[in-house]
Amino acid sequence: MSHLQQSFTVRFAYNVFFTEKLFDTANPLLADFFVQQASETRKKILVVIDSGVTETHPDLLTTINTYFAQHTDVVELVPDLLVIPGGEVAKNNPAFVEQIVDAVDRYGIDRHSYVVAIGGGSILDMVGYAAAISHRGIRHIRIPTTVLSQNDSGIGVKNSVNYRGKKNFLGTFAPPVAVFNDSDFLLTLDDRDWRAGISEAVKVALIKDARFFEWIEANAEALAARDMATMAYLIHRCAQMHLDHIAGGDPFEMGSSRPLDFGHWSAHKLEQLTNFELRHGEAVAIGIALDSLYSQQLGWLTGVDTDRILKTLRTLGFSLYQAMLDADKSAGIVKGLAEFREHLGGQLTIMLLEGIGKGVEVHEIDTDKVRQSIATLKEQEQSAQLV
Amino acid sequence: MSHLQQSFTVRFAYNVFFTEKLFDTANPLLADFFVQQASETRKKILVVIDSGVTETHPDLLTTINTYFAQHTDVVELVPDLLVIPGGEVAKNNPAFVEQIVDAVDRYGIDRHSYVVAIGGGSILDMVGYAAAISHRGIRHIRIPTTVLSQNDSGIGVKNSVNYRGKKNFLGTFAPPVAVFNDSDFLLTLDDRDWRAGISEAVKVALIKDARFFEWIEANAEALAARDMATMAYLIHRCAQMHLDHIAGGDPFEMGSSRPLDFGHWSAHKLEQLTNFELRHGEAVAIGIALDSLYSQQLGWLTGVDTDRILKTLRTLGFSLYQAMLDADKSAGIVKGLAEFREHLGGQLTIMLLEGIGKGVEVHEIDTDKVRQSIATLKEQEQSAQLV
Repeated sequence: MSHLQQSFTVRFAYNVFFTEKLFDTANPLLADFFVQQASETRKKILVVIDSGVTETHPDLLTTINTYFAQHTDVVELVPDLLVIPGGEVAKNNPAFVEQIVDAVDRYGIDRHSYVVAIGGGSILDMVGYAAAISHRGIRHIRIPTTVLSQNDSGIGVKNSVNYRGKKNFLGTFAPPVAVFNDSDFLLTLDDRDWRAGISEAVKVALIKDARFFEWIEANAEALAARDMATMAYLIHRCAQMHLDHIAGGDPFEMGSSRPLDFGHWSAHKLEQLTNFELRHGEAVAIGIALDSLYSQQLGWLTGVDTDRILKTLRTLGFSLYQAMLDADKSAGIVKGLAEFREHLGGQLTIMLLEGIGKGVEVHEIDTDKVRQSIATLKEQEQSAQLV
Repeated sequence: MSHLQQSFTVRFAYNVFFTEKLFDTANPLLADFFVQQASETRKKILVVIDSGVTETHPDLLTTINTYFAQHTDVVELVPDLLVIPGGEVAKNNPAFVEQIVDAVDRYGIDRHSYVVAIGGGSILDMVGYAAAISHRGIRHIRIPTTVLSQNDSGIGVKNSVNYRGKKNFLGTFAPPVAVFNDSDFLLTLDDRDWRAGISEAVKVALIKDARFFEWIEANAEALAARDMATMAYLIHRCAQMHLDHIAGGDPFEMGSSRPLDFGHWSAHKLEQLTNFELRHGEAVAIGIALDSLYSQQLGWLTGVDTDRILKTLRTLGFSLYQAMLDADKSAGIVKGLAEFREHLGGQLTIMLLEGIGKGVEVHEIDTDKVRQSIATLKEQEQSAQLV
């Protein structure tokens, strides 16, 4: 019995640009990018925008039309700018993927044309998925508009939609061709979205970089007060660490390596249990608190360090207890362990802390200890309210 | 304005095994494969089978159950074997992708488990797509059962389904983890399916390997007479060339490189115009004849060589004219040029012949010459019927 061996490598490369006023006609960044893409023909551009962004930026559609009207020599904007509701609804309703695929068909967007997504992580995930499956992958440009998407979810290689309420059940690994982080979009975020993105930076600092955590700890008040320069540094550093993790490991997670997912197993489940009322970053902050307390129970994290983590999260403005943590005597949250395992594949793998800046993976979780951590969070919440 | 650079490579590797009686309990190949896959946990296996295969192999479901019952130490067969209609209907009806995704959800198939597809190219394309988008890619094993899928479509890195009748509109690049070519499945093919797969071998020989074409020419009668040893060589050689092309070029077709698609622009359109009554390989045989005649009109291919190509195709049993070639005064077929360009992206690129074994790409096609080639095929068909 003979066999043929197939083996090859595929190289992926893209830049994450930091800018402001990307669609200002005086800003050459985007047009220069298109010019630098080798091409025999003028490419079409399909733009999909988060309705949350057009609400806070009512001139955006006009600005984009004006911008591309000045660059018709290089690219051709599809006149129909698609505006789609942001947030989890974008990923829950399959009609939105269909709407983009339909536009790809109707406007003849080929694989070397571009699908541009402007918005929060959910819109980027959903549009990225639609682009990835159309013609086996149309070039995809991401313009993340939230802290979370600029420092984490919008700059990586994954896309996804939900399926029957199961988060990210459908998706692919498909790197974008470019990411443009425009800091101007952060100015109009509400406080919840501003804050929510910070938890991913806390996460990556806690498992990889004690000095970065100390920086966040020292700057927590400035971040909560919406200091832009402080936020710019946080996003840049967090994005760099996120990109390094992807490139340095197993970018398409084909082996047993895992994403940087400290605090995430319970966060995914909490989002679902609260019907996505809780935002991803808010849920991650609770997940970080929970798994820090769990690490402390194992004797891996000192009480002092655990307190520093929880205090930093609270200074940033996060609530660290949510009533759904106690749903079904916490069977609700605990079910998240099995779903997390199933989604990642292989055996259960959960990141915990051996210290600040030092993540470690375990393959078993004691649900009694999880309940104890929840009880501690509840107790702290109640005593904080009594003060 | 600063930027971060992201860059990484991803390695893909898989074997294409040649065997017979894969699910015979005496054949260790498949079980050995599973054993060799490093794994902490016993993996689930979801099997999807082409109904055309279960019709010609009524014992197959029992055989598969018996086989996996002997290997429960390594893998766990999902008891619900999914039987799905083969052929283009599998790719046209989105309910089948949904059915597989639903099974992935229901049976808790994680990313390190396996989705196995058994059948012709359409089933493999559709199941491969469902596996690729579930959990961002479940390990996928292909067991192609036709000549076409064993030497070409089933061993590569693409999957797809149709969208509103547009062939392969949705899909991804996602290499399988293994391919098992079981020659026993070829014994029960009807003559049309046996023959149809040969045209891809003719195609690759014509554009890359004059000696392989001479071998096909010399063995055309034996192939038409269903000589198994001759077919085994053809499949092995064609598969090798197909794998080499993928690995040596641009596997995910991200640049301007194209698949080995001589004779394919008209073939795709002909399949659609005949409502997929014409099988892919049958349409490709006509497409090869058409583009050979076109190459002759350009003076690139001698009349003698053009005749050798057409004669070989006829000896293999192919009809080289189909009434839909003349649909709408051939506007129907010619529309295939634009659709072909759009699907591949970038400018129009069509492979022609500068000689047997020597393909060359052009970026313009003269529709009058296409009509002349069609007229020649029609004339030859009519005079053959008069004889």
